[in-house]
Amino acid sequence: MKPASLLRANLQAVEAITTADPVLTNIDAAGSVVPGFTRNTILTSGPIMPWEDYIGGQRDAIIGGALFEGLADTAEQADAMIARGEIQVRGCQELGCVGSLSGIYTASMPVFVVENSLTGRAAFCNFFEGKNPRRLNYGVYDDQVREQLLRIQQEIAPGLAHAVRHAGGVPLKPIMIRALNMGDELHSRNAAAALLFLQAISQALLEIGQKADAKTALAAINEDPYFFLRLSMAACKVMADAGQGVVGASVVTAMAFNCRQFAIRVSGLGDRWWTGSLPKVHARFFPGYSEKDLAWMGGESPITETVGLGAFAQCAAFALQAYQGGSPAEMLRRQRRLYRITTAEHPDFKIPFLSFRGVPTGIDIFKVVKTGIAPLINVGIAGQAGGQIGAGVIEAPLDCFVSATQAF
Amino acid sequence: MKPASLLRANLQAVEAITTADPVLTNIDAAGSVVPGFTRNTILTSGPIMPWEDYIGGQRDAIIGGALFEGLADTAEQADAMIARGEIQVRGCQELGCVGSLSGIYTASMPVFVVENSLTGRAAFCNFFEGKNPRRLNYGVYDDQVREQLLRIQQEIAPGLAHAVRHAGGVPLKPIMIRALNMGDELHSRNAAAALLFLQAISQALLEIGQKADAKTALAAINEDPYFFLRLSMAACKVMADAGQGVVGASVVTAMAFNCRQFAIRVSGLGDRWWTGSLPKVHARFFPGYSEKDLAWMGGESPITETVGLGAFAQCAAFALQAYQGGSPAEMLRRQRRLYRITTAEHPDFKIPFLSFRGVPTGIDIFKVVKTGIAPLINVGIAGQAGGQIGAGVIEAPLDCFVSATQAF
Repeated sequence: MKPASLLRANLQAVEAITTADPVLTNIDAAGSVVPGFTRNTILTSGPIMPWEDYIGGQRDAIIGGALFEGLADTAEQADAMIARGEIQVRGCQELGCVGSLSGIYTASMPVFVVENSLTGRAAFCNFFEGKNPRRLNYGVYDDQVREQLLRIQQEIAPGLAHAVRHAGGVPLKPIMIRALNMGDELHSRNAAAALLFLQAISQALLEIGQKADAKTALAAINEDPYFFLRLSMAACKVMADAGQGVVGASVVTAMAFNCRQFAIRVSGLGDRWWTGSLPKVHARFFPGYSEKDLAWMGGESPITETVGLGAFAQCAAFALQAYQGGSPAEMLRRQRRLYRITTAEHPDFKIPFLSFRGVPTGIDIFKVVKTGIAPLINVGIAGQAGGQIGAGVIEAPLDCFVSATQAF
Repeated sequence: MKPASLLRANLQAVEAITTADPVLTNIDAAGSVVPGFTRNTILTSGPIMPWEDYIGGQRDAIIGGALFEGLADTAEQADAMIARGEIQVRGCQELGCVGSLSGIYTASMPVFVVENSLTGRAAFCNFFEGKNPRRLNYGVYDDQVREQLLRIQQEIAPGLAHAVRHAGGVPLKPIMIRALNMGDELHSRNAAAALLFLQAISQALLEIGQKADAKTALAAINEDPYFFLRLSMAACKVMADAGQGVVGASVVTAMAFNCRQFAIRVSGLGDRWWTGSLPKVHARFFPGYSEKDLAWMGGESPITETVGLGAFAQCAAFALQAYQGGSPAEMLRRQRRLYRITTAEHPDFKIPFLSFRGVPTGIDIFKVVKTGIAPLINVGIAGQAGGQIGAGVIEAPLDCFVSATQAF
């Protein structure tokens, strides 16, 4: 392929990514609104593997999902049913969903429905599980986790759904644009975005009144520091999907991992995942933990980096140092390098500290391979015993980028 | 005075400033809650002068206040009544208030009541007048201005007062601490603080229900980008006042100006204003305006810089470039210089970009005179025809600092 036509294809993909207009239109059970989601479906993060290849927290989380959904009575039974295919384990992104950490979706779990107003195409993300570091998506399933998942389903989601419908939907891009001016990078920091979302539905909450469900919905937005992350992920999935399928484009349209592999999708190479080794980690661990406690249990939140947010917008969010380590000087150095592997600067997502330069958008696999600069990703870190044990920056492996370029 | 005892006195003043705990406890008419506020009182910004010395927008604003309050029927009558002392023009800070631009307070205007929970001492600030650049505090009084002032008084303030009382008061310092992590410097940028305030009273707004006054209050918080500025000013006044009156302290406890003079108060020098020339301006003008259109009509919002916010926290708010000009590099250079004229770094107000270094707090008049570094202040710029015509950074004049040091 000639450089000029490659660039043209990549710019077309980036144009679609940067002009997509994600709007939160509904909240409902995955089984009701996600096309293809059957009662015995469980979704999990990353390229799907044979059941015997799932280990550790991601395997535990999938089994936990089966128990939560009542598809099996015991872990042993769930395990056997999955092995026999009576419970179907599929990849989140096969069904338009996007998974946080192990990314477990079951039929009764409520999801945010986010649509691209330009095309009507939807993406879905389920809810943040709250502040407790022990969560299903971090490989833990116990009574507390179950109660919180039920609380989300029975108390938080109905009130929010009511308010979102009453508001006639909530455009997410304006919130994201403003949040970048307010210290968020919309992956590991979403503090301002949650407040802007609160502002966007505050009138609707007031109008639906003093019902218990309005109060619970309000409390969820106000209490959960990562409430907006799932909306950011669904919005980024809508944007990334808009850039998928451009003939000849070498732009990355998804980055994700399961418990064994990191993987990318490329706009011009269909829906196939190009897999590689697991990422390198620069983390800040919670007290009592260190790198030896770290476990990989999947994650698709790098969809935010895919469209230019998260680590690709880290100089919008210097306060992240307190959460994931690093220094402002290091953040600037990293931020600058990421411009060398991308196709364009985002016309709407801008960084005040860089004199409102647009975030680097549209990772070009050829640039990654040529420069040897790995895409960086801000993530929460899971522990071997389940739960969150820290946060940090990970470096995507280069091998999957190399295989993808070879396919061109 | 020996250097050691000067330092000790200054640290005592700064300790009082930095530990003060401003809490919004009430909203009510100035005439009802501000001690000494009579029906025929009008407050205005800066050191008080003989009536004939007031010129331009500040004079127009004082007369506008008299008309708004119904103390006179015509501008001529108001002018004559002020000249005869039948309408009393006093300085905002004489009565514990703090004025934005010309800083007009009349008896019926609602004010935020902010108390230091450590001492019970209160400060007051009236309301932001909304987005229209033509406002009473910018020297304009016409039907539109009058209607907006009545809307604040009759619709916005009652609902907010209801919610604030229902919430049992709103601690402001936690909001300010978080806002500094979210792109605000709490003088010319208050976007995050307004959302955090919304969050703080959202439950109360929901509980007081669907009454029209709750909706109007909510709309005011959501629509006015500077809604929180007046709360920041009252909170900063509470903090600065806490540091006032420390024997032997050379720390500045107020900076303000009227239409002719800049002035400062110093902790160890009583309530007297040390006056000097008008500041130097680095502004960004709205389209159609330039420096020749600029007018001075008073301002006491530099109370925010007095406690280490505003220009003293500019590296918390890089997005301000879009509003008041400058560049991130220039902001950093300016920010660093301000550490050279202050007594301490604030233990709670911190700047993420400076690796969470505390803001420079407690301007020492001796350091200002010795280094020749002028305190900088972020301000809105008023035009000769009234109204806001831009925003920028001003440099305090050195002469008032020199006179104050000579008094020691």
